[in-house]
Amino acid sequence: MCGTDTEAANPVTAPHPNSASSPYQRVDDYLSNVSRYKIIESTLREGEQFSNSFFTTEMKCKIATMLSDFGVDYIELTSPVSSPQSYEDCKTICKLGLKSKILTHVRCNMDDAKKAVECGVDGVDLVIGTSSFLREYSHGKSMELIQKTALEVIEYVKSQGVEVRFSSEDSFRSDLVELLTLYKAVDKAGVNRVVDRNSGVADTVGGATPRMVYDLIRTLRGVQIETHFHDDTGCAVANALTGLEAGATHIDTSVLGIGERNGITPLGALMARMVVTSPEYTISKYKLKMLKDIEEYVASCVQVNIPFNNPITGFCAFTHKAGIHAKAILANPSTYEIIDPSLFGLTRYISITSRITGWNAVKSRVQQLGYTLTDDQIKEVTAKIKQMGDIRPLAVDDADSIIHSYNLALHQETVTA
Amino acid sequence: MCGTDTEAANPVTAPHPNSASSPYQRVDDYLSNVSRYKIIESTLREGEQFSNSFFTTEMKCKIATMLSDFGVDYIELTSPVSSPQSYEDCKTICKLGLKSKILTHVRCNMDDAKKAVECGVDGVDLVIGTSSFLREYSHGKSMELIQKTALEVIEYVKSQGVEVRFSSEDSFRSDLVELLTLYKAVDKAGVNRVVDRNSGVADTVGGATPRMVYDLIRTLRGVQIETHFHDDTGCAVANALTGLEAGATHIDTSVLGIGERNGITPLGALMARMVVTSPEYTISKYKLKMLKDIEEYVASCVQVNIPFNNPITGFCAFTHKAGIHAKAILANPSTYEIIDPSLFGLTRYISITSRITGWNAVKSRVQQLGYTLTDDQIKEVTAKIKQMGDIRPLAVDDADSIIHSYNLALHQETVTA
Repeated sequence: MCGTDTEAANPVTAPHPNSASSPYQRVDDYLSNVSRYKIIESTLREGEQFSNSFFTTEMKCKIATMLSDFGVDYIELTSPVSSPQSYEDCKTICKLGLKSKILTHVRCNMDDAKKAVECGVDGVDLVIGTSSFLREYSHGKSMELIQKTALEVIEYVKSQGVEVRFSSEDSFRSDLVELLTLYKAVDKAGVNRVVDRNSGVADTVGGATPRMVYDLIRTLRGVQIETHFHDDTGCAVANALTGLEAGATHIDTSVLGIGERNGITPLGALMARMVVTSPEYTISKYKLKMLKDIEEYVASCVQVNIPFNNPITGFCAFTHKAGIHAKAILANPSTYEIIDPSLFGLTRYISITSRITGWNAVKSRVQQLGYTLTDDQIKEVTAKIKQMGDIRPLAVDDADSIIHSYNLALHQETVTA
Repeated sequence: MCGTDTEAANPVTAPHPNSASSPYQRVDDYLSNVSRYKIIESTLREGEQFSNSFFTTEMKCKIATMLSDFGVDYIELTSPVSSPQSYEDCKTICKLGLKSKILTHVRCNMDDAKKAVECGVDGVDLVIGTSSFLREYSHGKSMELIQKTALEVIEYVKSQGVEVRFSSEDSFRSDLVELLTLYKAVDKAGVNRVVDRNSGVADTVGGATPRMVYDLIRTLRGVQIETHFHDDTGCAVANALTGLEAGATHIDTSVLGIGERNGITPLGALMARMVVTSPEYTISKYKLKMLKDIEEYVASCVQVNIPFNNPITGFCAFTHKAGIHAKAILANPSTYEIIDPSLFGLTRYISITSRITGWNAVKSRVQQLGYTLTDDQIKEVTAKIKQMGDIRPLAVDDADSIIHSYNLALHQETVTA
């Protein structure tokens, strides 16, 4: 593999050659918040629910600090009621003086809310399940009781000068009329925004689809809306985007998506999506070059590897292999790259070591190595690389050796001729 | 962590308690093909373009056989023009007598098409870039020349009694009018279906969104439509679903999504999505219990780990940790699971080893260990587990030891009392 330094227009911010005539250009939608979305980063709450997570106080402080420097709007912490150390850590993080606001996420009852306020948080997320599944098998409360409790708790939190949000868990399996009735009551009580956290518009089980999300969020329009999407069916990033298009304002993320089961919308994948959809806002608001370090630090804390196919930071996210792709990338990276890797401090690679390698990629490598060969000679040496690539996996040294040896043989011919 | 055997209705196929009243139930859409989608499995074509791939003939035959047994409709192979071994392997796989049809994927020119037909494939995918990016920087051909060549090649392939498909690469950055003009001409020539492969409706660069996909595919309705989505911005699964909802008929996948860059719609993630959207069709058509073995075999061939957060087969996809989740899951798994793991031959786990563990999960473990404790005693032992969980990561043995020791102490108190 060889790095390239090809200078070319940024595929994200450069004007598209078709922009005047293509009907695929996103039409501005008056509901859409894709150009002013906010992030509620939940690695230290949802992420603590990931199977492998055990965060020490030191890890929590470092993660919170990195996320604040990255530019997320809110950092959400595990409920201080969960354990004595959770309580202490919540207080500690509130005292760090970070740029991001600090939230905690508690059950919708007065005891939990009081503990949260005690810790000095900027905001409290109240959460309760509203689907018949959760009402029957989790807390056993009626919608009337949920509403009554919610109003009391909201009143208390507000009286303490703390921002409050109300989240209905499992929104997508809740009854729409009941849900809207509840939101209406809560909204009158002056909650800072409608939340759909582990609900509100929270897809707690990960079963929602983009069109379901669009329809529900659009129905709730007119208020601030947070969204929370689990990734059980692989739609968490697309659902977050579609939610913004329909008028949602806040997206819950965690680093690498860590959370219950296989997790939620990953911060990095969301950045990949939003740097394409809203390049100016995303590039100016978030320190994208920090992403890799943040992911690597969290991965080391929870002892996982960065997934091989992770957007942006997966080891081959900017590697091009097939001959057709490599040829065009060398001429203009926008041909096969929707994201400019340099925005994230990364580089692209062109693989020249397989049976599907094309001669244009080999030509580029030959030039990098400082040799001058004709196109016919390059096609000949490409055939040799492909022949070897049919037999076994090749390293970049192997391809280089074939090129060196071919070039040497040429010169010897010249000398002996 | 402890396995549970809770008997409960399958969350996918069981009638939803809200189904009569919930407005979120998917409304049948006359364009939608979610209940009759077909899979074009491209691990042996797109997957060969993955950075780490080097498939021997033996690996290719084993992968093709597993995929055919799994139930995919088509298996797509690397162009036989790529290398001598690619040509031989294509012939070998065609002779295996698999249930799946065998396709190969070639550049839209006569030489490549002839080589493909020689190999004995059931179908040929012709591919050419139609965006201005690819026309300028890849092949340099005008739309007129593309159309002329396509018609000649299609005519030839059809005359040989071989199925033919035509794919325009980078469809989402192509001019809509030019694209429709090309499809119309090709359609008249009698191509079996409109293809959007590395195009057609191929999102070659991974930048499309669900709503873009819905709009474009709906515009092409009335013909059979294949879709191909790259995952650079994390939307490949959602885009595939939305394409089907808009009238697409075929989805390209690869095992674990392997392909150029970070790959395409993964077969497993698509199954997670479709078993929720169309349970009857998906369960009856595909041998879902083979998924894990297929993923593990391909992962070993290309030397990657299954991503920790993979839908279904990620190590913690069915692990429940937070107290609220665990309590409800024990009462009814549908509360926090949209997919029944047993459909894939897998089981769920309830974690009881952290600071966020709840007493209901501990109660279940106490019962599994054969002890009889009161709820107050269980809350006491839960506090001890949480106390330890505040200090360090716990294994399941640690939690069990705390329970054993607590129980022992109780009995000693009784004896000495």
